[in-house]
Formats: sequence, C-alpha cells, structure tokens
Amino acid sequence: MATDKKTADTESASVSLAKGMHFVGEIDGFSIDTDAKEEAGGVGAGPDPVRFLLLGLAGCTAMDVISILRKKRQEVVGLEVEVHGSRVDEHPKVYEQIEVIYRVEGKGVDAKALERAIELSETRYCPVMAMVSKTAKIVSRYEIEQES
Amino acid sequence: MATDKKTADTESASVSLAKGMHFVGEIDGFSIDTDAKEEAGGVGAGPDPVRFLLLGLAGCTAMDVISILRKKRQEVVGLEVEVHGSRVDEHPKVYEQIEVIYRVEGKGVDAKALERAIELSETRYCPVMAMVSKTAKIVSRYEIEQES
Repeated sequence: MATDKKTADTESASVSLAKGMHFVGEIDGFSIDTDAKEEAGGVGAGPDPVRFLLLGLAGCTAMDVISILRKKRQEVVGLEVEVHGSRVDEHPKVYEQIEVIYRVEGKGVDAKALERAIELSETRYCPVMAMVSKTAKIVSRYEIEQES
Repeated sequence: MATDKKTADTESASVSLAKGMHFVGEIDGFSIDTDAKEEAGGVGAGPDPVRFLLLGLAGCTAMDVISILRKKRQEVVGLEVEVHGSRVDEHPKVYEQIEVIYRVEGKGVDAKALERAIELSETRYCPVMAMVSKTAKIVSRYEIEQES
C-alpha cells in the first residue's frame, strides 16, 4: 500500500462527491465545498476547485508579508491580498498571468520594508508562488494606507 | 490601475487579515478561513494556505473523472479523491511528491474506463495537475467498490 510510505510530514486534502458536481472538501477537519461552474454542470454550491490555487497563493504570500513586516517592527493594522488570474484557452487551461495586489493599512509603514517583504515571499518563502510561477507570469503591486 | 486591464475571464480570490495569522479568504462570495500552523504563530482558525493547492487538485481531478465516467455511462454512486503531498525541506518548500487516490463506488464500474478517465485528467484536463506537476512527481492509484 502506498499509504505505508507516508511520513509524519505528509499533508492531505480530500473531496467526496455530494451530488452532481458538488463535492465536499476536507482539510484537517475543516469542511470546504467545491462545485463546478454552471456551464460545466455545477449549481454554485461552492467555488470552482481551480480557484483554491489562487486562494492558497493569496494566503501564503499574505502570511509571509505580515510576518516579515512584524519582524521589521512595522505597525500594520490591516492587510488584504487580492489575486487575479487569467488562463490560457487551451486545455489544461493553466494560469498564464497572475496579478497580486497587496493593500496594507498601518502607521508609518515603510514602503521599502514592504517591497522587501513582498520580494522575499515571491523569491524565497511562498511555495504556491514558486509552483505557480512555473506556468504563470506573476506581477505584483501594493498600496499603503497610512493612519495618522 | 492594473485592475482596468482585467477581462471578463479574470478569476479572483482574496484574503483579509483577521487577527494574528488568521486571514479570512474569499472566492466569489464564499468565505474560507485560513491560518498558519501553530509552530508558525497560528491558532488553528483554518487550514494552512498551502493546503488549498492539494484541495484544488483533488477537486479538479475529481470533477474531470466523474464527468468522464458519466459520459461513458458508468454507474457511479460515490467518488472520493484523497491527495497526500510531501514537501522539500528547503525554502520555498514546494511539493515534491503527490499521491492521488481515487475511490469509486458504483455498479459494474469498468476499471479500464476509470483508468482512462484518470489519465485524461492527469494529462489533458486538470489545470492544477498541469501546474503542480512542474515541481512535484504525481503518482495515482484507484480502488473500486462494486455494488451488487
């Protein structure tokens, strides 16, 4: 059995058919629905599964950036990361272009510190970026809203 | 503004800081929490974001396989797809090995039809497989539980 080869470091996720194209996903006890788009026979019971890749990318780089900014003693009170992806028309329709927008809210946040945090996530820390960048060109930009 | 360049085909996802390392994710109005692991400063308010990549892979290939089996008039009553991934130790800690297990429940399900459905998903239809296979070796196996 291949499962015998799993180590303690193995990470898992699964989906189980509910009805139609609706599957109930599971990660470590967290239940997450997924469904095909309507044009592919779904009924909107959850997001299209390919989108989870964009969500994973947003979450992964957001955690890198907030960690680095906190280590750099930046006073960040809000961080939103928005990811937009466009795919090629041909199967398997991989993402070819991904835009990542970082919106930081804080007091006296240093733009250079933020740029460096984003760069470290993109080039060194974020596994999803590293994987997705093999097929997609990733471009990013940021906005800082300074509180008084 | 880069957002002006978005086309109707652009797909989006975002995360917004809640507290600590807990972010609230969003895909098309669906809210999905994510949090860092405890060793990385999280409190378990949601799965680690990198896992969404495994969930996306499971959902994407599950939908391909169920669609193809239905087109082939196979009587499938249940489908579960389980994904196990192991990562390299060095940053950015990409997945290097991914195992995909398909568990099909049905009446007289043809093993050859299932094998072909899995092959088509792996080689032609599943965008997440196509992207992740650039860094990870993907192996798969299946089990069929025939109902009488």
